[in-house]
Amino acid sequence: MCRILSYLGTPVLLDDLLYAPDSSLLNQTIGAQMLQMLNLAGFGMAAWDEASHAPNVPFRYRTTQVALFDRNLKALAGKLRSSALLAHIRGVPYNSTVQINEQNCHPFRFDGVPLSMAHNGDLAGFRDMRFDLAPHIRPEFAKQIQGSTDSEWIYALVVSALPDPGGINEPDAILAAIRHALSVLREARARHGITRSSSTNLMFCDGTNLAAVRFTFDFGHFDAGALQGSSEYLSMWYTCGRDYGFHEGEWKLTGGAIDADSVIVASEPLTRDFATWIEVPEYSALLVRRDGARRRAEIHALEV
Amino acid sequence: MCRILSYLGTPVLLDDLLYAPDSSLLNQTIGAQMLQMLNLAGFGMAAWDEASHAPNVPFRYRTTQVALFDRNLKALAGKLRSSALLAHIRGVPYNSTVQINEQNCHPFRFDGVPLSMAHNGDLAGFRDMRFDLAPHIRPEFAKQIQGSTDSEWIYALVVSALPDPGGINEPDAILAAIRHALSVLREARARHGITRSSSTNLMFCDGTNLAAVRFTFDFGHFDAGALQGSSEYLSMWYTCGRDYGFHEGEWKLTGGAIDADSVIVASEPLTRDFATWIEVPEYSALLVRRDGARRRAEIHALEV
Amino acid sequence: MCRILSYLGTPVLLDDLLYAPDSSLLNQTIGAQMLQMLNLAGFGMAAWDEASHAPNVPFRYRTTQVALFDRNLKALAGKLRSSALLAHIRGVPYNSTVQINEQNCHPFRFDGVPLSMAHNGDLAGFRDMRFDLAPHIRPEFAKQIQGSTDSEWIYALVVSALPDPGGINEPDAILAAIRHALSVLREARARHGITRSSSTNLMFCDGTNLAAVRFTFDFGHFDAGALQGSSEYLSMWYTCGRDYGFHEGEWKLTGGAIDADSVIVASEPLTRDFATWIEVPEYSALLVRRDGARRRAEIHALEV
Amino acid sequence: MCRILSYLGTPVLLDDLLYAPDSSLLNQTIGAQMLQMLNLAGFGMAAWDEASHAPNVPFRYRTTQVALFDRNLKALAGKLRSSALLAHIRGVPYNSTVQINEQNCHPFRFDGVPLSMAHNGDLAGFRDMRFDLAPHIRPEFAKQIQGSTDSEWIYALVVSALPDPGGINEPDAILAAIRHALSVLREARARHGITRSSSTNLMFCDGTNLAAVRFTFDFGHFDAGALQGSSEYLSMWYTCGRDYGFHEGEWKLTGGAIDADSVIVASEPLTRDFATWIEVPEYSALLVRRDGARRRAEIHALEV
Repeated sequence: MCRILSYLGTPVLLDDLLYAPDSSLLNQTIGAQMLQMLNLAGFGMAAWDEASHAPNVPFRYRTTQVALFDRNLKALAGKLRSSALLAHIRGVPYNSTVQINEQNCHPFRFDGVPLSMAHNGDLAGFRDMRFDLAPHIRPEFAKQIQGSTDSEWIYALVVSALPDPGGINEPDAILAAIRHALSVLREARARHGITRSSSTNLMFCDGTNLAAVRFTFDFGHFDAGALQGSSEYLSMWYTCGRDYGFHEGEWKLTGGAIDADSVIVASEPLTRDFATWIEVPEYSALLVRRDGARRRAEIHALEV
Repeated sequence: MCRILSYLGTPVLLDDLLYAPDSSLLNQTIGAQMLQMLNLAGFGMAAWDEASHAPNVPFRYRTTQVALFDRNLKALAGKLRSSALLAHIRGVPYNSTVQINEQNCHPFRFDGVPLSMAHNGDLAGFRDMRFDLAPHIRPEFAKQIQGSTDSEWIYALVVSALPDPGGINEPDAILAAIRHALSVLREARARHGITRSSSTNLMFCDGTNLAAVRFTFDFGHFDAGALQGSSEYLSMWYTCGRDYGFHEGEWKLTGGAIDADSVIVASEPLTRDFATWIEVPEYSALLVRRDGARRRAEIHALEV
Repeated sequence: MCRILSYLGTPVLLDDLLYAPDSSLLNQTIGAQMLQMLNLAGFGMAAWDEASHAPNVPFRYRTTQVALFDRNLKALAGKLRSSALLAHIRGVPYNSTVQINEQNCHPFRFDGVPLSMAHNGDLAGFRDMRFDLAPHIRPEFAKQIQGSTDSEWIYALVVSALPDPGGINEPDAILAAIRHALSVLREARARHGITRSSSTNLMFCDGTNLAAVRFTFDFGHFDAGALQGSSEYLSMWYTCGRDYGFHEGEWKLTGGAIDADSVIVASEPLTRDFATWIEVPEYSALLVRRDGARRRAEIHALEV
Repeated sequence: MCRILSYLGTPVLLDDLLYAPDSSLLNQTIGAQMLQMLNLAGFGMAAWDEASHAPNVPFRYRTTQVALFDRNLKALAGKLRSSALLAHIRGVPYNSTVQINEQNCHPFRFDGVPLSMAHNGDLAGFRDMRFDLAPHIRPEFAKQIQGSTDSEWIYALVVSALPDPGGINEPDAILAAIRHALSVLREARARHGITRSSSTNLMFCDGTNLAAVRFTFDFGHFDAGALQGSSEYLSMWYTCGRDYGFHEGEWKLTGGAIDADSVIVASEPLTRDFATWIEVPEYSALLVRRDGARRRAEIHALEV
């Protein structure tokens, strides 16, 4: 069912974010706290490093290998200091009918589009409604769809609804596009008579802005037989502060939200200790807004 | 641009077909005679072995590894005696924009459909017309599309046009479905103003019947800049006879077409010596028809 | 820490052995009952099928993919009826210092040697004593060592001690060679001052005979910090009978040991119900002996 | 037979070095000018970027994928500006007996050792003499050998002969260690009666210093049957200057050797135009020496 991690703030060594905490994203490959599922179907990330060439373009890395075994990723994480990150580990059912390939690894990012997206969830009946979504996708993005995930189509719907897909969009504009995409999906579900609970926790980052939504269509409508992962409302948490590091025996941001210059949003806290983490409410969006050197996380209700 | 090999006849050790001849399919990975291109993007096959469990179901194997290095394939080829085979090595442009994954390896075969297909060629503008083809595909097949190749969509169009996709179809019925699919593509090209030469050499096998077409849309209409592989009409050859083996210093069928019980169809001859091989004419289909214990290869003109 | 499955008996569909039982080897990838560890580092097997070409040569397949996701293996398992099998899933520590590659997947089998071996365990200090073992290995086998596992060196020691490595050896001869190899390791440990508990559960099969040992050097001597997997004595179980299949709601052999023509030996029972399974005692070897059409499992004490 | 590229100088975008020239290292995967062989068995590099975290530690990346298809490498190459580079593409015989895995990809680098090495060549009879080399390797390095290449053992011999393997060694000290390692190999060859021509073109880089040797044992002594690749003396070229870039229609360094601050050493020139490239003589070593801000390439005869 996947796990996601996003970060926006002062530069942080990637290894400290991805590997170091006791419940880090990489450790969630095999031991997520809030998901009774392994995430063995690949890893992907977009990582912005201001000291690198073309700093607006992220380092992009995707692989189908079990992430914990990946030497290239481990080496890369020891070299990059990221001011923005969107990272994802993919979890799928444990059988040979799933399509495990690089094109199905998150985050998704089309050519010429700064915004990347990762998804945690599962659209019921997606294969039935898939091609009906095509008219809602701009032709230049429709042709870039390469994999077989529902997630890539959600991404295509969202970027098709952006005012300026080739530029940096304000958090509100991103949220408006997400809302539009969710309403297109709502209608497609209705048209196909799909009523099963479908999680669409999404995180978006373009290196400058970060937007995330915690959302489920028709939560609670399950076919007992068809369940994957959890029937719980998929989790999403965040934390704000400064100076991410190992403070007082724990990896965390310090100083609280007031003077925060950094924000972490993740499927679940990166540490066993939740003290500095806040849950994103169900049916809501989290936007990170700049305010001088500070960054403010705002919660918006999400009615679709 | 890919190379294909198909076989129908008395059981033959797979190693003798796939590896042994001097210009075998595996050797065509790096040294095809009639294609100035390497085929490094994966291998796939459906191989029927009458001595195996569930003989109507083929051994199916697909991998993105460079085929010549693959130990599992080499080991498998030493164990199977195939009465029918459809095998393919994939060639793609030499850069990192291509999607190399198992889902893009041929041959294609949907659940519940005995007919498999491999493709040698390239539909110009496919990504522009892709989703417009969806209405011509039966819903139960549309949902099974997993990769990003034009080939898988061609396959979906053909099986959607079969009278009985879940059963064994006569060669004429397969040919009629191919014709229908090509006409759908013809119309889609017209609608999108696509006039570039597009090769669609196809081979189909279900373990009982074999059908192949050598066809190109608008042959000779090229944009000089956009060429991949060859601007030649892609080749297809066949040979008929009995007792495939190493005869008189050459891997071949013997005895000629009259009493043939076996047929090989391939993108190009498997040997440097073409003596026993016949070219499939351009714009035509080859059907293998049963006549008692004999098998007869028929050529039909293909006007679409 | 790995899990192993071996079988010798009347032909059985591989899918029924590898996938069907509720705690099948494939399910042990992520949910072993007697090992608190995932086995994500690859799969390998040697499977003998009497109906295949060259029946004395096994189908051999090894891959580093998470085994449960592997389509090629699933397809193969639906086609082969095995009269003998040695299959293994590899478990390693969850970090990027491990060497995951095909050469490190079990079972091991050198060119010209019918006997294959799989290992469940871990030789403490192996990297320190590795090259000191070379003088105990015949040169023609030393040069065939390709990977970096302790297991491959144990295999090389055993086949070097066989009276006729290129032929089929009687179970007693295999056991004598195992004893010799373990004594070489015992001495090497002493020379290097290695006293840490080291499991060497081994299974050998050549298609005709099967031998297995459940053994640990210096059991109970642990450095608390260096533990991987379990500090328990690694498990090994077996079951004898006829007609492996789904009987009375359970996958099992029936009829008991008296008239048995088939034997399964495995790291742990393949079912949650242990009723028909017997534990191989600690410090002992299990040999499968032929007696006409029947097969008898014998337990021998193993003092090294 | 492999191709290598090394660079030392002012920071250069990796994409300009690895991909841009008409005969770039990546293009040599399938179209080397001076080697009639494809290099399909993997890619590896150590790339030092002064703007990255821990600038003395290189970005390290190795993969068995056909390098031209690798999206992660292409993306990485667009982000890093390297002041030092050692990159390698691996070429092996085209069959399934070769061991293709990450552990066999160059460059090699042991934990705690700054010096990396890549090899272009092939030690005849290596598998016969392999374990006899162990006594010449320091135990802390012997235990780090993970793959099955001759190259990794050569590397282990060289670093074992360094005065300070854990530090930065002067070019002369590196050369002395190379000489020692070659003499160990010379003796091992004599002891085993190996007289076949064996190429050992080597490049070493630690981010500060660069040393390369063009050497062959017993050049010209061939068994006709056993040849791989070329019977020519394997090539090595270099170029010195400033400001690597696209100058006057060609990717090159400008200004010549006098005021050079940058040096490229490669198996063959990166461009079809050899004008600015100089051949490293046979049986010689190239050392890059610092002289204030300038860098000077020195050639030393290599008698072993």
